[in-house]
Amino acid sequence: MQPIKVYADRRSQPSRAVIIFCRVNQIDFEEITVDLFKSQHLSAEFRKINPMGQVPAIVDGRFKLFESHAILRYLASVFPGVADHWYPADLFTRAKIDSILDWHHSNLRRGAATLVMHTALAPFLGLTTSPDAVKQAGKLLMQSLGRIESVWLKGDAKFLLGSPQPSIADLSLVCEIMQLEILGNDVRDRFLGAHEKILIWMDNVKKATSPHFEEAHELLFQVKASMLSNAAAANQTSEPSTKLKIASKL
Amino acid sequence: MQPIKVYADRRSQPSRAVIIFCRVNQIDFEEITVDLFKSQHLSAEFRKINPMGQVPAIVDGRFKLFESHAILRYLASVFPGVADHWYPADLFTRAKIDSILDWHHSNLRRGAATLVMHTALAPFLGLTTSPDAVKQAGKLLMQSLGRIESVWLKGDAKFLLGSPQPSIADLSLVCEIMQLEILGNDVRDRFLGAHEKILIWMDNVKKATSPHFEEAHELLFQVKASMLSNAAAANQTSEPSTKLKIASKL
Repeated sequence: MQPIKVYADRRSQPSRAVIIFCRVNQIDFEEITVDLFKSQHLSAEFRKINPMGQVPAIVDGRFKLFESHAILRYLASVFPGVADHWYPADLFTRAKIDSILDWHHSNLRRGAATLVMHTALAPFLGLTTSPDAVKQAGKLLMQSLGRIESVWLKGDAKFLLGSPQPSIADLSLVCEIMQLEILGNDVRDRFLGAHEKILIWMDNVKKATSPHFEEAHELLFQVKASMLSNAAAANQTSEPSTKLKIASKL
Repeated sequence: MQPIKVYADRRSQPSRAVIIFCRVNQIDFEEITVDLFKSQHLSAEFRKINPMGQVPAIVDGRFKLFESHAILRYLASVFPGVADHWYPADLFTRAKIDSILDWHHSNLRRGAATLVMHTALAPFLGLTTSPDAVKQAGKLLMQSLGRIESVWLKGDAKFLLGSPQPSIADLSLVCEIMQLEILGNDVRDRFLGAHEKILIWMDNVKKATSPHFEEAHELLFQVKASMLSNAAAANQTSEPSTKLKIASKL
């Protein structure tokens, strides 16, 4: 069978979720990098794959699909080797996972992605930003993290909904939260420090998908190191050890 | 079989989508109004149904579910009387519908709902707003309408993806766009006037779900009439015919 094509930029959190999912489930795929920083997602060539100009997108034979949650649902449904826990056939459990995935868009994603966009990425992408947008995004992110803990990580839950094994919702949400790394350790800790259950859960997802989780996140940590290094140079407080210190957290 | 409970406020677009879906598919349900303007969605009682404090939510026996897309998927899957076209069993078509539903959150919904919130509803809900947020939302809404036309309503498509019959994606997205009514006819037309395909498609969805579509939207048109009437009074240009004229569009 022909491998599927995965169009992705590993700096994008939903791209990483799809890549990790494929690796963990031994789905044969060819990764095609769409460099967001070079605006390759807006090229006429890529628009033929995804007219919305966003990563990730997949091509499976003659079938094209975009939106990471739809991709994860599709892959879990059509590849017989994917274990049931990723997207259970049981309609009640499946509906609960769908509910988390849908909630994600306007809550955790909107908070986290907007915050990252308006702080770390805006200068690189030439975007205008506003302190109000940053404040609103931070508030939504903090609220979302609290809600994940109180609603889906009750008691000693190892994964969302108290499941003993991860679903596509665990993978998608944790990849989203990982994006906070590029805000630097202080900002990341300001959001995650007060959420012990989130930290334990993230570690559970990482372990359940190791070593693919770490491998898919390598580029993110490189971007983080580079950004912090640039920021330090700009502040004339650069220390040679900074980059190494962060890189060692891989 | 016990009817399901649907917790809804018909002024909320996803609430209407779920109600119309139940009516069209003859799903026996009890509607429980959660008045958003009275903050009933934030009450301790409703938090037991949906801890996120949002409508719609359903209770089916001992099973609780929130997020309208997850609810629509669930209802289409568990009620055998629901026709296949609403959420096809075919995995390729289903994935395409999932893709539209996922895209909806961060595009059409984010544009339309933010615009409505920051203009029509902000004064009633005591929210602070910003011209920049309104501008960004309007831009995203206009772009989203254009994308729906060029990607999913190609050629003479009657419904999204060129389907001859509607899916849950058609219903969800059209209910979202209907929310623009409360911005008044001028603003609504500024967005929809240039999108003929959108207007035809909305009419197709309305006809395919009539008379339930109109019935579920009655309250929205009452809110619209009331808002326009208040605005006219505030501007001291109130004409007695305004309210009747708008009400007649039901």
